Amino acid sequence: MEKIQPIIWDGERLLLLDQRALPLNEIYISCSSAEEVGECIRRMAVRGAPAIGVAAAFAMVLAARQIAPSLEKDEAFLDKLAETGTILKNIRPTAVNLSWGTDQILVKAKSLLGMSPGELLEHLENTALNIYHDDISVNKQIGEYGAALIPSPCSILTHCNAGALATAGYGTALGVIRSAFFSGKDIHVFADETRPFLQGSRLTAWELQKEGIPVTLIVDSAAGYFLSTGQIDCVIVGADRIAANGDVANKIGTYTLAVLAEKHNVPFYVAAPVSTFDLSAAAGGSIVVENRSEAEVTHLQEVAIAPPGIRAQNPSFDITPAQLIRAIITENGVIVNPNQLNISRTLAYER
Amino acid sequence: MEKIQPIIWDGERLLLLDQRALPLNEIYISCSSAEEVGECIRRMAVRGAPAIGVAAAFAMVLAARQIAPSLEKDEAFLDKLAETGTILKNIRPTAVNLSWGTDQILVKAKSLLGMSPGELLEHLENTALNIYHDDISVNKQIGEYGAALIPSPCSILTHCNAGALATAGYGTALGVIRSAFFSGKDIHVFADETRPFLQGSRLTAWELQKEGIPVTLIVDSAAGYFLSTGQIDCVIVGADRIAANGDVANKIGTYTLAVLAEKHNVPFYVAAPVSTFDLSAAAGGSIVVENRSEAEVTHLQEVAIAPPGIRAQNPSFDITPAQLIRAIITENGVIVNPNQLNISRTLAYER
Repeated sequence: MEKIQPIIWDGERLLLLDQRALPLNEIYISCSSAEEVGECIRRMAVRGAPAIGVAAAFAMVLAARQIAPSLEKDEAFLDKLAETGTILKNIRPTAVNLSWGTDQILVKAKSLLGMSPGELLEHLENTALNIYHDDISVNKQIGEYGAALIPSPCSILTHCNAGALATAGYGTALGVIRSAFFSGKDIHVFADETRPFLQGSRLTAWELQKEGIPVTLIVDSAAGYFLSTGQIDCVIVGADRIAANGDVANKIGTYTLAVLAEKHNVPFYVAAPVSTFDLSAAAGGSIVVENRSEAEVTHLQEVAIAPPGIRAQNPSFDITPAQLIRAIITENGVIVNPNQLNISRTLAYER
Repeated sequence: MEKIQPIIWDGERLLLLDQRALPLNEIYISCSSAEEVGECIRRMAVRGAPAIGVAAAFAMVLAARQIAPSLEKDEAFLDKLAETGTILKNIRPTAVNLSWGTDQILVKAKSLLGMSPGELLEHLENTALNIYHDDISVNKQIGEYGAALIPSPCSILTHCNAGALATAGYGTALGVIRSAFFSGKDIHVFADETRPFLQGSRLTAWELQKEGIPVTLIVDSAAGYFLSTGQIDCVIVGADRIAANGDVANKIGTYTLAVLAEKHNVPFYVAAPVSTFDLSAAAGGSIVVENRSEAEVTHLQEVAIAPPGIRAQNPSFDITPAQLIRAIITENGVIVNPNQLNISRTLAYER
């Protein structure tokens, strides 16, 4: 069993490790309906692109169970399920995995029409469980490919949390770090705290500490200092959505790290499953950036840290152009100097 | 009278506006000794390079008053006073103004030896008062020179607090913004929150709100997003120490903004009085960067935001190379593309 289990399906309910309570408290929220899972995604009790994709798949299973008994017509069942899907997808617009996880269940349901409700629901549950288990094995494959890029010793800067907590388990960027560390490499991680939600100080620091991987916490704006003083050998981050040309939407602050890495000629890597690619977005410019509430900036854990009435802006993501990315590490292989051609080739590859 | 008075000398005591309590509470700390002023500098109740220079000058006056009556010999008086000066200077090693303010009083005391203690103390008090009033008029001159560089409309990004609160009044970077705004220009300020101490959200946002200057608060790592989306026309910051070649030590995160400004071809300005130059430092590499406590990163206003036992690093400043600076705005004039030659020429200029 994995050390960190952010998502547990017990056959009836989805248990989500409340990431807002970490690192001081480990509390699971029990969800019995798609609405409850949706609320956890909205309030970021569960966050991280792959994790919300997996949670959304189980939310759709819960919705299907709720809808199925009361409807006789297949089309009405599908319509109702698609309605729930649309609501879920709109909760957080930037991470493509949310749409992806939702659609996996919808497509499966469509393919199973005509089955008895009992059989259909069992198949949908199995699809969600497959998504869950696949996510972990995909991450381990990303970890293996990525670890090969990491020298020893290596001082790695990461941003936000692209770890076990952001996925079904193991992690993407932190999966690479885990693989490198447990293969015996001498790894030191610098973790950006990642304001405003503090995924770095609360989640990445906690996760790495739990694994015994050496980690130093810094404020986001100190990354330039550590890069300019030669203390960082590479940067690895996750992704929320990757356009067809390799432009990457990821947590606010990612773009700045890519610019700094370019300035200091340090490799900048993105680790993400192929489900993160959105080929309908030709380039980063067509990716919608979610703006979250001003209160996340003006308050910290409900304590006001700015004068009352002050305006704030809180874009939750930024776009890093492909030109700044040395490689995207996927479960299908490493895409060096990503562009439309090598991306489409890698996505077409069957594992 | 200025709207914001961070430092008040009442003839007996130095009253310091406690900047840790802002923006929610306006509380003055009353200091009757150099030690008390030193504690305020150490704990950042008073902060900002010019402000701690002024506070240190008054701390030396308080020390002189304490020492003078008990000593008969002039040399012993000077030795004791120099001892206090050394203690003060070591409290915060990066800001040169702390040394500068301290030394102004020491040099004056040396020049007055032989006078009666009463006369000497009165002269020292007047020297400190001159430093105080000079600081405000210097800032206004910087503001006037700087405002000429600002177009209208202009969206300005600033970092930390180089405002009235960081000086005796008016401010350096915010002095330029004040001058531009009150000369009728259409100004909008983006203020970085400036972790870990939140000078942006607590102080700059408060100061600009008080003046009615439009301001939007953002997290530090969002600066890249706003620059890359064309929403920033220029960047203005203050300085804690400037080397002979124009390299600038300023609040952690400044270097990153300079790199981003270069990437997006947006002018990056530094506003600072000539007292900020340290010609004994040939380049930025010889400036000592203060490391502050890990708790500033792992905690926010005494609330833990990271797992217990986690390591952190907290460099309080970084170095921005002169090549990234479009101009340094001083009270002696604007130094465009700063280098050793045009800096030494500007410093030699007598106002």
